[in-house]
Amino acid sequence: MRLTLDEPWMRRALALAERGPAVDPNPRVGCVLVAPGDGGEHGEGGTPGEGGAVGVVVGEGWHEGAGTRHAEAMALDAAGGRARGATAYVTLEPCSHTGRTGPCADRLIAAGVARVVHASADPGVASGGGADRLRGAGVDVEQGLLVDQADELVRDWRVATLLGRPRVTWKYAATLDGRLAATDGTSQWITGPAARADVGRERSRHGAVLTGTGTVLADDPHFTARDGEGTLLTPQPLRVVLGERPLPSHARVTDEAAASLRLTTRDINAALTELHAREVRSVWLECGPTLAAAFWRAGCVDDVVAYVAPALLGAGPSPIADLGITTITGAHRLALRAVHQVGDDVRLDLRVPPAHAPTALPQHLGQRRRGPTDPIKEAP
Amino acid sequence: MRLTLDEPWMRRALALAERGPAVDPNPRVGCVLVAPGDGGEHGEGGTPGEGGAVGVVVGEGWHEGAGTRHAEAMALDAAGGRARGATAYVTLEPCSHTGRTGPCADRLIAAGVARVVHASADPGVASGGGADRLRGAGVDVEQGLLVDQADELVRDWRVATLLGRPRVTWKYAATLDGRLAATDGTSQWITGPAARADVGRERSRHGAVLTGTGTVLADDPHFTARDGEGTLLTPQPLRVVLGERPLPSHARVTDEAAASLRLTTRDINAALTELHAREVRSVWLECGPTLAAAFWRAGCVDDVVAYVAPALLGAGPSPIADLGITTITGAHRLALRAVHQVGDDVRLDLRVPPAHAPTALPQHLGQRRRGPTDPIKEAP
Ligand SMILES: NC(=O)c1ccc[n+]([C@@H]2O[C@H](COP(=O)([O-])OP(=O)(O)OC[C@H]3O[C@@H](n4cnc5c(N)ncnc54)[C@H](OP(=O)(O)O)[C@@H]3O)[C@@H](O)[C@H]2O)c1
Ligand SMILES: NC(=O)c1ccc[n+]([C@@H]2O[C@H](COP(=O)([O-])OP(=O)(O)OC[C@H]3O[C@@H](n4cnc5c(N)ncnc54)[C@H](OP(=O)(O)O)[C@@H]3O)[C@@H](O)[C@H]2O)c1
Repeated sequence: MRLTLDEPWMRRALALAERGPAVDPNPRVGCVLVAPGDGGEHGEGGTPGEGGAVGVVVGEGWHEGAGTRHAEAMALDAAGGRARGATAYVTLEPCSHTGRTGPCADRLIAAGVARVVHASADPGVASGGGADRLRGAGVDVEQGLLVDQADELVRDWRVATLLGRPRVTWKYAATLDGRLAATDGTSQWITGPAARADVGRERSRHGAVLTGTGTVLADDPHFTARDGEGTLLTPQPLRVVLGERPLPSHARVTDEAAASLRLTTRDINAALTELHAREVRSVWLECGPTLAAAFWRAGCVDDVVAYVAPALLGAGPSPIADLGITTITGAHRLALRAVHQVGDDVRLDLRVPPAHAPTALPQHLGQRRRGPTDPIKEAP
Repeated sequence: MRLTLDEPWMRRALALAERGPAVDPNPRVGCVLVAPGDGGEHGEGGTPGEGGAVGVVVGEGWHEGAGTRHAEAMALDAAGGRARGATAYVTLEPCSHTGRTGPCADRLIAAGVARVVHASADPGVASGGGADRLRGAGVDVEQGLLVDQADELVRDWRVATLLGRPRVTWKYAATLDGRLAATDGTSQWITGPAARADVGRERSRHGAVLTGTGTVLADDPHFTARDGEGTLLTPQPLRVVLGERPLPSHARVTDEAAASLRLTTRDINAALTELHAREVRSVWLECGPTLAAAFWRAGCVDDVVAYVAPALLGAGPSPIADLGITTITGAHRLALRAVHQVGDDVRLDLRVPPAHAPTALPQHLGQRRRGPTDPIKEAP
């Protein structure tokens, strides 16, 4: 029964989390503080949860990005003394480390919060451990409610925390017969304006757009994030070019429209580590078959977005170069997550399973959080 | 106003037409005879149209395939004397020729039908002209109501009538990166069980499954139509193999499960003419890149069904061989009609525009029907 009562509040916390920026080194987190009141009172700035929710909101908060208050802090600030005895619904395990702000676990304890329900676990070595800390102080802690939605919301940060590199989405656009370009190298435009505007929006949702020298030399693309009308979006991704060949000084990817970075290397792990150090948490990989295969072989592709144009070319380069596969049972299988029609084209969203991209929780980290805090299971 | 009153009856006629067999040399046709009655009486075997329909059904009919009564004849038989003064809603222009049954136009005239509303025009040289014949006898004739749905229903027959060959749907299954098979030639199974069952159902909806010797020699497929449990469906398509190389005598495509036909030729037009003569009106083309390209170059592909598997191979044959296209503006563009998820795979339904497949109404035939019988337009 408790689960049904808790769920509307966690949904509210998730909605609050989404107010945070999509591109940020920190995770998006939402928090709702609920006092056990009978519904006759109303919390300051609080709005009640959806149907079935019992209690009174005494504070709400969300994280607006690196350098600002954590979601729990914002909610506690709003609640003041009314936080005593309340339940905190947080989309991510409250942190236990002193970063740019103090540890949230300690603030919740000091405010007298009686119970904490959080969705995701914090896999960070420094930041994690908040649940244990709360429990040690006598706070009732439950984990796992709506964990899939919550994990999805912090996926960039999660991959980055676990692997020390940004999450990588490989994007390509091809014809029905899997041609990335014609035999003369021309590829503008395989897809229509709606798909290209969709790509513009995706670039703006990622910390960096990454490509290879091959694409720059072939197409001289801008790689800025623009809407369907050609207007620059905010934020603009960092435009990154990988590879050893020199580029012409006038290459568009280095123009003034947005920041750019030249990484004169073929070492993918070094390049991603460099981007991670620059606080890039997500990479939109928009390259030719050569670099796509290199990323794939390095196990550095987490997601795939494929645009399929209703056209046939009969010849031309494939989306991805040789992967060393010779027989059908060796094919790399991806998980199809969504299919949409975008204008005249089709967009497929896929995820690379852990076998090919090691973004699953590494065993030792995955286990660290378990034990006393068993995930909450849906009642049948 | 008349249009709104007519439309429910034509929808009813379309629903009746669908009772006919999907695989047949003749078109699927439905007919509803409606007397102007006040709603107090009920026609024998008749059911009233959907909301807003005024009048009384006095007869309904549909065509159950070659050798059986036409839809109009079945409806007139049911109506008897009550057909006098009625309106006939027919999905296809009533025929004017004496085939296996007498001309329907004459039967409608003899029964005293006052008005005929038909959706599709009959492009046949022998069968067409029914509207003119009716009009000459003083019957009020209107054409074009719900014509798109009606044309779709008789598409096989229409293409066959206009071009003297079956309608051809090219099917292929490929990975995300456009690989039809691995480099060692293995392609079983690229797609999952749901997509394969879907292919089984499609085979059963076509008059013939056609392939090349290349596919038979590589895969030794059965090419029977089976459901997801492996049970043979009814009807089974004729299994046709094209190409000059000899096949092993034990090739599965020639087994007892269904009929098969060996066409020891590379002449696509001759092969399709032969199938047309055998009353095949639709071909499901399930072949390798060589024959697919040959059909495409011959302008003999009308529709495309592509199954895209969420997998990567990095190498292997493409769905279609060279088409002589060297630059992106030369790409053949298709019309995307539908996208569906089928199990873990994606199915794309596409249509080849007339520029690449000459299945549009040839000018002289297209014009023959127009003039006095202007298509009905929706009122704004
Ligand atoms: N349709 C689409 O979605 C799309 C998107 C992008 C590009 N394209 C097309 O792709 C074609 C270009 O393909 P491409 O393969 O030449 O370009 P690419 O994959 O973008 O760049 C390849 C280059 O990346 C560099 N590189 C860096 N790290 C590497 C590593 N670990 N392994 C191998 N190479 C590494 C190498 O350059 P150095 O030799 O300089 O080290 C390599 O030649 C163009 O025709 C373009 O139009 C299409
Ligand atoms: N994934 C799928 O949907 C799918 C479906 C079918 C096949 N496949 C794969 O496709 C591969 C076989 O490819 P394929 O290209 O060899 O097979 P194919 O296209 O089925 O057959 C090619 C043969 O067709 C004959 N042919 C008849 N008329 C022709 C014409 N006008 N022009 C050219 N050839 C004509 C020729 O044989 P002769 O030399 O005997 O005259 C030619 O070699 C296999 O790996 C199979 O697994 C995949």
